[in-house]
Amino acid sequence: MNSIEVCLSPALFNFKTSTDNYIVVIIDVLRATTAFCAAFDRGVKTVIPVSGLEELLEYKNNGYLTAGERDGAKIGFADFGNSPTVLLQSSLSGKELAYSTTNGTQAVEMAKSSGNIVAAAFVNLNAVSKWLINQQKNVVILCSGWKNTFSLEDTLCAGALVETLELSGKLMHNCDASGASLTLWQLSKNNLKEVVKNANHYKRLIKLGQQTDLQLCFRLNTSEAIPVWDGKGFMDLSKTRV
Amino acid sequence: MNSIEVCLSPALFNFKTSTDNYIVVIIDVLRATTAFCAAFDRGVKTVIPVSGLEELLEYKNNGYLTAGERDGAKIGFADFGNSPTVLLQSSLSGKELAYSTTNGTQAVEMAKSSGNIVAAAFVNLNAVSKWLINQQKNVVILCSGWKNTFSLEDTLCAGALVETLELSGKLMHNCDASGASLTLWQLSKNNLKEVVKNANHYKRLIKLGQQTDLQLCFRLNTSEAIPVWDGKGFMDLSKTRV
Repeated sequence: MNSIEVCLSPALFNFKTSTDNYIVVIIDVLRATTAFCAAFDRGVKTVIPVSGLEELLEYKNNGYLTAGERDGAKIGFADFGNSPTVLLQSSLSGKELAYSTTNGTQAVEMAKSSGNIVAAAFVNLNAVSKWLINQQKNVVILCSGWKNTFSLEDTLCAGALVETLELSGKLMHNCDASGASLTLWQLSKNNLKEVVKNANHYKRLIKLGQQTDLQLCFRLNTSEAIPVWDGKGFMDLSKTRV
Repeated sequence: MNSIEVCLSPALFNFKTSTDNYIVVIIDVLRATTAFCAAFDRGVKTVIPVSGLEELLEYKNNGYLTAGERDGAKIGFADFGNSPTVLLQSSLSGKELAYSTTNGTQAVEMAKSSGNIVAAAFVNLNAVSKWLINQQKNVVILCSGWKNTFSLEDTLCAGALVETLELSGKLMHNCDASGASLTLWQLSKNNLKEVVKNANHYKRLIKLGQQTDLQLCFRLNTSEAIPVWDGKGFMDLSKTRV
C-alpha cells in the first residue's frame, strides 16, 4: 500500500515524512495549475512557471509566449494574463508558454529536488489520479497556498485527490493534514461553489473581476491534461501516449 | 473588531499577516499546554518550557522541579514525565517547574518576539477566551503541531477557540486556516473523543500506554488557568487577580 501525504504550504514541504520513491503533486487551483491544464487543452507544448517579471521578459525575448499579470491587470509585454479562461479561447498549438506565478513557482522550486512532479487542479483531478495510481509510488500533495499560508481551495482539491486515490485501494493517507483535507473536501463537495466563496483568494479574485475564471476553476474533470515536470517545465503526458 | 488568525504549524508563524497589537495563543494539546494547566491547578508558581534534556538537567541542578520523558518513559533524573495526569496528582504549591517539550518550546521560541503569549488547551479554553476578549487585541493562534507538521488535535482546539472568541462579537477570523479550523471543530465537537482517535499523535500515545492522559486532554474547561508568558516562563494570571 502506498502512502498519501499532504503539505498544506510550500513552507511545510521540508518537514514531510516521505523520503524516497514519491511523486509530488503541486496544486494551485487559483489559478496556475488550472491555467496549465487550459494551455495544454489548447495544444501548448510546454509550460514554464516563472516567478519574476524580468525572467518572464527574458522568455518573451527568446520567442516564448508569455502569461502574467499583477494586481489583476495583464502585464504590458505579456501575451496573456493569468486567466485560464482566456488561454482556453486561444490557439496555442505547438507553442511554448512561460507563465508568471508566485505561489506555483515557489511550490515547484520546493519540489524540484524530488525529480517527480505533476500539476493538479479540480479540472484534471481524474486524469492525474489515474496516472498516479499507475505509478505505484507514494504521493506527496503540495498545496501552493498564498504566500506560504494555508489556502482553502488548494486544501479542498488535495482532499478530493486523497479521496480519489484511496478509492483505488492502492494508496492510503498517512498524516493528519491529509485526513483533515479529506474531511473538509467530503463536507464541501456537494456544495463546492458555495464553500469556496469563503476562501480569501476567491474574494480577492472577485474584487478583481475574475468571476469567469472562478467558475472554470471549480469545475471538475473538464481536462485530460497530465502536466508532468521534465526538469525545465511541464509537458502534457496525456498527449505523448499512443 | 479585532482579528483572529491561525498558524497551523510553527513553521508558518513567520508568514502570518498580523504585524502588531496581537497576542499569540500557543496550543499543544498533547500534552504540553494541557500539562501547564495541570501544574498551575496544583499551585505551581512558574512553568519553564525547555527543549533539550541538558537544559532540563541544568534547571534540575538549580533547584527546579523537572518534567520530561523520551519515548514514553520518564527521564531518569526528572521528577515527572510529561503526563498532566501525574502533575494533577502532585503537590506543587509554590514550586517552579521546568518542562521538556520539543514542539511546545519551538512554538514559544517562534512567538517570543511578539512579547505577548498565552498557553491554551481544551482544558482551559473558556478561561483563556474570557481573558483574550478583555485584552482588545488581535489574536494569532499558533498550533505547535508535530515536528512542524499539521496536527489534528491542535487544529481542533484552535477551531474551538475561534468559535468561542467569535461568540463575543468582538473578534472575527480573517484567514482560510482559521475558517478551516472552525469548520473542523464544528464538525467534530459533538464527537470529539472519537474524532481525535484519527490523530497520529493520539495513536502514538495510545501505543505508549497513555490512555489516562488522552482522556484528560480532551475534557473541556476543567481548569481556570491562564498561563501567560513573562519573558522567561509561564505564570498563571488567574492566581494573581484579586
